[in-house]
Amino acid sequence: MKIVALAGGVGGAKLAHGFSKIINTDDFSVIVNTGDDFTHFGLTICPDIDTVCYTLSEKSNPVTGWGRNNESFDVMDALKELNAPDWFLLGDKDLALHLERTRLLWEGQSLTLVTERLRRVLGVHHSILPMTNELVRTFVNTVEHGKIPFQEYFVKYKYLPKTIGFDFIGIEKAFPSPEVLGKLAESDLVILCPSNPFVSINPIISLPGVRNILRGKFIVGVSPIIGGKAVKGPLALMLQDANLPVEPESIIKMYDDFLDIFLIDTNDHHHTRTSEIPSSIIISDAEILLTDISKRIHLAETIINLYEKYK
Amino acid sequence: MKIVALAGGVGGAKLAHGFSKIINTDDFSVIVNTGDDFTHFGLTICPDIDTVCYTLSEKSNPVTGWGRNNESFDVMDALKELNAPDWFLLGDKDLALHLERTRLLWEGQSLTLVTERLRRVLGVHHSILPMTNELVRTFVNTVEHGKIPFQEYFVKYKYLPKTIGFDFIGIEKAFPSPEVLGKLAESDLVILCPSNPFVSINPIISLPGVRNILRGKFIVGVSPIIGGKAVKGPLALMLQDANLPVEPESIIKMYDDFLDIFLIDTNDHHHTRTSEIPSSIIISDAEILLTDISKRIHLAETIINLYEKYK
Repeated sequence: MKIVALAGGVGGAKLAHGFSKIINTDDFSVIVNTGDDFTHFGLTICPDIDTVCYTLSEKSNPVTGWGRNNESFDVMDALKELNAPDWFLLGDKDLALHLERTRLLWEGQSLTLVTERLRRVLGVHHSILPMTNELVRTFVNTVEHGKIPFQEYFVKYKYLPKTIGFDFIGIEKAFPSPEVLGKLAESDLVILCPSNPFVSINPIISLPGVRNILRGKFIVGVSPIIGGKAVKGPLALMLQDANLPVEPESIIKMYDDFLDIFLIDTNDHHHTRTSEIPSSIIISDAEILLTDISKRIHLAETIINLYEKYK
Repeated sequence: MKIVALAGGVGGAKLAHGFSKIINTDDFSVIVNTGDDFTHFGLTICPDIDTVCYTLSEKSNPVTGWGRNNESFDVMDALKELNAPDWFLLGDKDLALHLERTRLLWEGQSLTLVTERLRRVLGVHHSILPMTNELVRTFVNTVEHGKIPFQEYFVKYKYLPKTIGFDFIGIEKAFPSPEVLGKLAESDLVILCPSNPFVSINPIISLPGVRNILRGKFIVGVSPIIGGKAVKGPLALMLQDANLPVEPESIIKMYDDFLDIFLIDTNDHHHTRTSEIPSSIIISDAEILLTDISKRIHLAETIINLYEKYK
């Protein structure tokens, strides 16, 4: 059985971590959003790929969920002394990865090949695939600052600006990499990780052809909303800005043309208004707050069992 | 009195340091070789500019003469863990400067403006001018490895390859910056620092128009050869490869169309064969091993006194 997960950063990485512990290396891979990628100090930084690599190699910062464990910040301190921009935190180990990625990209290698090399040297056994080798850059339309690059919205402005919409610049001319198309084609089960639908999952499924492929696959989604709140990040604010309830139903509607099963948190189960959800979608519940590795593995097992039951 | 120094890295920086201690900020500036510059991990690294900045701001490593004092190497250690190239040492503080330079260059600023900003934030009071804003890249023709970028010859191969010649790629289309031309035009005295003539001074004076400007100026050179040896680096080997004696005379001949005074070490004075030197060039002697700040200041004073005497 072949499983593919579509993921953004922290939330997606946690569920992928669970699958990576119970599925053979050839049978599980993660397709990662690259819309958050940006160029900073001339370096190509891929925050979601990095978070997935660090989480699957168990090198991530256990407190933040992103960045490296046992990290130092000597370069960041020196940048501050130079009055350089310091809104994006660059740990020394993290920076080394950005440097090596940028070096390999300058050599002319694709982001897919570079990521393959870097995840291996970090000790990740499963494939981590950038959604595309092309440049796709998420811009956020905001009330306060107009149209700004995602990392400025997310990190520099701490997702305080009110959002009007999202543009994935370059997406029309981008295409999924051959490796992404290959993994999707051979997959039995595709997981929509509990990642932000607007800016993590949507860039992936907006790549030409991907949504159509997903309509022909067995798809299990996991809610990034628990107890009327986003587990992490700006999702609740984005839903409010779009005049949508901060409830799993809002997420389901974004995927309703290809979703087979949607998992919501057990505590949310009793009050989910299934009347508004297409009857073709099975709503199930589980413990989806993935605070430790045993919970991540348990959720992965739950998803596989649901697939075996309903496939 | 306006003084301009032409400099490469360590040797040039030391003499410039001496001048910077006794000359007003508006009256002394350093024009620095950029032929050694290179792109590494996607970053623009300017080793000679950095060395001059660190030396004049008294932030250089006192043992090596290049790189930063009180330096840490956390990123370098992390790069090694990623199996990234480690032949070029990147200290954390040094790396911050490369990052900020690269960021500012990506903004579209000229190398001259970027260097002006960085030298100020480092605490350098005098102008440090890249010889040009254009890309000029020194390549070394070697017996063992063919034509290789200067930093590979110099750092990666530790200047062991036998040299056949030097190419300054891009120099025909490059031109001195307006700031360089302005400083040369208003200068009363131009110093050729005790830098490598082949790869530090020659790129500067090979820029279109510069040699001709120097012919109309009062020029004092300082020997980079003491006691039949190069003070530092590959100069002695380069002279041998070119079948030239490792003596000050070999240096003088490279500058004999514009040199007014050449300073050699006091210990070399008795055996210098002045018969082969054009009578228009005054040979004088001084202590030119610039191990501490008092010697650097003393040599700067000696040069000014010689100018006053012979101008």
